[in-house]
Amino acid sequence: MIFFESHVSFVITYLIINFPGFAKPNQFETIPLTNFTESASAIAHPNIAFIKYWGNRDHALRIPSSGSISMNLGGLITRTQVSFETGLENDLLVLNGGLTSGNALARVSALLERVRAMSGIQLFARVQSENNFPSGTGIASSASAFAALSLAAASAAGVQLEERELSRLARTASGSACRSVPAGFVEWQAGKDHSSSYAVSIAPPSHWSLVDLVAIVSREHKFTGSYEGHLLAGTSPFQASRLKDAPKRLDICRRSILDRDFEALAEVVELDSNMMHAVIMTSSPRLQYWLPATMSVMLEVSRWHKTGIPVCYTIDAGPNVHVLCESEHAGEISKQLTSLPGVLEILNSHPGGAARLESNPPDD
Amino acid sequence: MIFFESHVSFVITYLIINFPGFAKPNQFETIPLTNFTESASAIAHPNIAFIKYWGNRDHALRIPSSGSISMNLGGLITRTQVSFETGLENDLLVLNGGLTSGNALARVSALLERVRAMSGIQLFARVQSENNFPSGTGIASSASAFAALSLAAASAAGVQLEERELSRLARTASGSACRSVPAGFVEWQAGKDHSSSYAVSIAPPSHWSLVDLVAIVSREHKFTGSYEGHLLAGTSPFQASRLKDAPKRLDICRRSILDRDFEALAEVVELDSNMMHAVIMTSSPRLQYWLPATMSVMLEVSRWHKTGIPVCYTIDAGPNVHVLCESEHAGEISKQLTSLPGVLEILNSHPGGAARLESNPPDD
Repeated sequence: MIFFESHVSFVITYLIINFPGFAKPNQFETIPLTNFTESASAIAHPNIAFIKYWGNRDHALRIPSSGSISMNLGGLITRTQVSFETGLENDLLVLNGGLTSGNALARVSALLERVRAMSGIQLFARVQSENNFPSGTGIASSASAFAALSLAAASAAGVQLEERELSRLARTASGSACRSVPAGFVEWQAGKDHSSSYAVSIAPPSHWSLVDLVAIVSREHKFTGSYEGHLLAGTSPFQASRLKDAPKRLDICRRSILDRDFEALAEVVELDSNMMHAVIMTSSPRLQYWLPATMSVMLEVSRWHKTGIPVCYTIDAGPNVHVLCESEHAGEISKQLTSLPGVLEILNSHPGGAARLESNPPDD
Repeated sequence: MIFFESHVSFVITYLIINFPGFAKPNQFETIPLTNFTESASAIAHPNIAFIKYWGNRDHALRIPSSGSISMNLGGLITRTQVSFETGLENDLLVLNGGLTSGNALARVSALLERVRAMSGIQLFARVQSENNFPSGTGIASSASAFAALSLAAASAAGVQLEERELSRLARTASGSACRSVPAGFVEWQAGKDHSSSYAVSIAPPSHWSLVDLVAIVSREHKFTGSYEGHLLAGTSPFQASRLKDAPKRLDICRRSILDRDFEALAEVVELDSNMMHAVIMTSSPRLQYWLPATMSVMLEVSRWHKTGIPVCYTIDAGPNVHVLCESEHAGEISKQLTSLPGVLEILNSHPGGAARLESNPPDD
């Protein structure tokens, strides 16, 4: 059976690569497969954006209005298994142990449809996905989830994708997921269309021993999801200025990473975070992701920084505060963070590797 | 003696009005006055900006980059007495009972210099000023203080000024003080130079029974004064957009006041407040006036508003939250505010009158 699966996979891959027109679903209708299963398991890390993604040029394809830069969060993992199976009447999604339908399943199915179209497979899939970190609180679980799903689904369907193709595929399901595909420090090149919009690694995980101490101040699901937020970005009187200024911030951020210049990184990362939240709190309707405890942590981090401690904050579309520092300072800062009122927990993360199949060795 | 004082005052006023070139200090050097005292006492209210003033076209003269709209805060009062006296070797400032020097005295003296230049008086003055509300915490005590000082000083010096002239004079000492000169709901017409930049009343205090419940969350002096903040406004990538959009917000705000349309007022007031703080937190260096308790009150007010309660927030350059509602809802909202964590005190204010001499009857 294993041989047969590999054989089918190989044949499909061969045909797609050599005869792109071949990959049409109806050409496989006659293949008599019973109890057929093609499965693969992949893991990916969430990422923290240093220069944020907020607003799309094309909402359907998630082509962003500007580029962004992030770091994969090693230690925080989404593990996703995809099995294309005969006998299923629709795609199934088991999320953190619970059968899930609705919007989450619809997004998963939309991505699987793309993979089915690429591979020619017509089977529905069983998808099992688990995070080792809390969902929906500003740690982009959708990023790691859709990066892992993209890789697992493509692999299970026998589709060989280059990293940039995998990044594009993940992007169509969740914009920031494209950044969880390459390793380490990653830049999402905004591009102008599907083929030009994907993420690339600008430095491997080993390049810089940065630490992201994620101060969890709420475990509740956020009120407004990122997707809805992206739709509203253009209603802020500040979004145009934010986008116009983005190339400058991207240049400074990229350079600060390559130079391992913490002070330059801190300056641009805090500015960019405040700029995104400024757009969020002036959109129509206005949104607000910060909680009182978010404010506490931001103010304390700023106070520490003023006393000479190399530390800064950044906040994604949620209330938790990502506190960045170099590894030598992480122990002391983590201890201080734990003592702040409203801080429930600290997640300690370092630069993480690329999305990878479970059969492949980890690179972080 | 009283007759003599009045006589001198009258003569000076007459000469200034009819012979503007006469008002040169050295022309009075030979007048032999001993134990001469001209004094006056005035009161003025602070004001809360509905459309904020942040950033100057001319820092020295405090010509603002955009217009603003505010409401005087009746019940909150600065009382300022000015006495031009022989025998003083410099101006004296007694602020809330304490002899004060440094920057506060320098600003007072600069205003007195303008009045001396207008009147021809060469005497130094003793200035006593008291607030019945806490200073430096986002309630613009400098606004009421310099509005009251302008009126008291001009009156003590025997200079008759029209309201708009008094507003201009107050503006040179503290921008927002020009709005504490006219009564009730006030618009500061930005203008382009000293003569065109002053505030006018757009509706009297009796026009609308709005209430400002000021939730005091800190009594500490703010870290960065407004003057320094205004200097930084232009360094934010958002200030240009904020200014460009200002005429629209001013129109909506003015119209909502004239129509007593609370929902329209709430929408533009919260947006404008967030826009000013967005500029503040993205300037270089970044500033942050919000505290965790500021965030608590903002979030609660937004939550109440979503449940249908007509209430909104606005925050000046400090941590305290001005919670606006119509008088019929003030009792219940005040009670709710008192119960929030971090709220130390609620100041209850209604539309206040114009700056006035103590000898004149109050209009609020």
